[in-house]
Amino acid sequence: MAEPTNRRFLLRTRPEGRVKRSDFELSEQPVPTPAPGEVVLRTRYLSLDPTNRIWMTDVEQYMPPVAIGEVMRGLGIGEVVASASPDHKVGDLFSGLVGWQDYIAVVPKAPGWIQLPSGLPVPLPAMLGALGMTGLTAYFGLMELGKPRAGETVVVSAAAGAVGSVVGQIAKLQGCHVVGIAGGPEKCAFLRELGFDAAIDYKAEGWKAALAAACPRGIDIDFENVGGDIMNTVMARMNLHGRVVLCGLISGYNSDQRPTGPFDTILMKRLRVEGFIILDYLPRAMEGVMQLSQWMMAGKLRHHDTIVDGLEQAPEALNMLFDGKNTGKLLIKVS
Amino acid sequence: MAEPTNRRFLLRTRPEGRVKRSDFELSEQPVPTPAPGEVVLRTRYLSLDPTNRIWMTDVEQYMPPVAIGEVMRGLGIGEVVASASPDHKVGDLFSGLVGWQDYIAVVPKAPGWIQLPSGLPVPLPAMLGALGMTGLTAYFGLMELGKPRAGETVVVSAAAGAVGSVVGQIAKLQGCHVVGIAGGPEKCAFLRELGFDAAIDYKAEGWKAALAAACPRGIDIDFENVGGDIMNTVMARMNLHGRVVLCGLISGYNSDQRPTGPFDTILMKRLRVEGFIILDYLPRAMEGVMQLSQWMMAGKLRHHDTIVDGLEQAPEALNMLFDGKNTGKLLIKVS
Repeated sequence: MAEPTNRRFLLRTRPEGRVKRSDFELSEQPVPTPAPGEVVLRTRYLSLDPTNRIWMTDVEQYMPPVAIGEVMRGLGIGEVVASASPDHKVGDLFSGLVGWQDYIAVVPKAPGWIQLPSGLPVPLPAMLGALGMTGLTAYFGLMELGKPRAGETVVVSAAAGAVGSVVGQIAKLQGCHVVGIAGGPEKCAFLRELGFDAAIDYKAEGWKAALAAACPRGIDIDFENVGGDIMNTVMARMNLHGRVVLCGLISGYNSDQRPTGPFDTILMKRLRVEGFIILDYLPRAMEGVMQLSQWMMAGKLRHHDTIVDGLEQAPEALNMLFDGKNTGKLLIKVS
Repeated sequence: MAEPTNRRFLLRTRPEGRVKRSDFELSEQPVPTPAPGEVVLRTRYLSLDPTNRIWMTDVEQYMPPVAIGEVMRGLGIGEVVASASPDHKVGDLFSGLVGWQDYIAVVPKAPGWIQLPSGLPVPLPAMLGALGMTGLTAYFGLMELGKPRAGETVVVSAAAGAVGSVVGQIAKLQGCHVVGIAGGPEKCAFLRELGFDAAIDYKAEGWKAALAAACPRGIDIDFENVGGDIMNTVMARMNLHGRVVLCGLISGYNSDQRPTGPFDTILMKRLRVEGFIILDYLPRAMEGVMQLSQWMMAGKLRHHDTIVDGLEQAPEALNMLFDGKNTGKLLIKVS
């Protein structure tokens, strides 16, 4: 019997558009042996995620991109096949960044490695899915950023995907009206089976009208996995003070022009962008005026204005704001 | 002596691009007399604000647009010149939506009218500026949405404008490093005089590099009044978990294509858009796994996956995510 080898996918070239087999070199090496304190894991399952595509591109992102010549980064589950750690034995299961390879030698106590309990009551793949990073993404993204309240309308894009399918189920558990957007009738049937209140096939004619009809009270939360036209369509139907959980922008990941736009930055840097109109704070106006007056009386805040004389000047004077002709507050002195 | 008349600017046509005098009809009417409970205000000062331009355009916005033939809406300060209200006398001052006209009859107790205290220790224009709606916009926008912490870097666009000049001063009072963006050396000098740590002239060559140099620790808060290229440039330099207070998008208000983009929607609907990457929540992973497991064990949450067999399939299988070929979690079974 041939000696087992460790097959490793090394990133050879940065993909342009879709990923090609030839962007990688499949290199074979001997199976590693564990140094003291290490174990050798044999990969059982590898998780494929949209973010893998980002890691292949040399742009600023939330982790360093994979370097050319390195083993492709990937999350997975590995089983201990050799142990030089007194605390871990053959058969133990770990999840972590096993990479696109058969074997990896790791220090199991290092950060990033999570030992799975033995005798799992669910199939192993669920530990990378609904009970793994995918499930956590859905759970914390929806609960912490979306903050769903019973009766609100939640729209999920890429709803039949790993994260989306869990988001929708959790939103239902919160008592929300849940609408999923997915491509094709089979995926939409799957969403209804999962308990989504409505499923919109974005490949079908008239999907925007169908989305509107499925959200008669507007949209309170957009759990966004896609970006582009789908995101813009959902956003345009959102209610006052709605929340967009920007979790993914898969529509752009195969583009080599990225990151092009502000939404890429919002995602990678986890920015919070919030629309503000003073109307919402008028009930607290007195509190603001008190503080501002106090600062002004203490000489810590200055008022400055540009005053134009005469009501008849109003229309043309308004353009000063757009031409940058005023400093401070622009006013018309009427009388 | 001629009888005084009430000059009123009625919106005649919706402006295209810049506002023209001919977009309005200046109609003269007799000065109104107060009905019982009313007072007649004579406009003293009229506030000109970028949002006035939005009100002239027939698009979905945070208030109804001004109708054709209506008096142009505008905030201002009026002085009582005739009273049929027992509680108000000639000389009392009110701020509210006086409109682009000399006189208006109002019920001073109706919502939206604020009586100014008599014997103001500041000039009247300040009550429309730093101590008025402008100041409140700066104060609540920065404090409630921006949540500045001492030592953080705050960038303000349209910094020499009414709101921006107050935002910068308040940010300094919070102990922040404050950088203003404005057009031209005079405005930049004005910002430095107000105490801004740096002022960037966006009309000068190399302003993007100057902005970077003025923000050596990145940008934590963008108080955004402008949008477009200025916003994108600021956002690209933001730190992890930065906050964008989207208060205005003046660069687009003269465009008749608006509202074009998602940022218009974010502003008008006061949406909160937040980037999310699960890394930030890994310290709380156990909490999430516990909840998800509980739901799964109770039959309330389903895991679903698409499994591809063989490590060698990894590169091509990744494309399934982008082609929509998977339902639920996509995995490679390696061994």
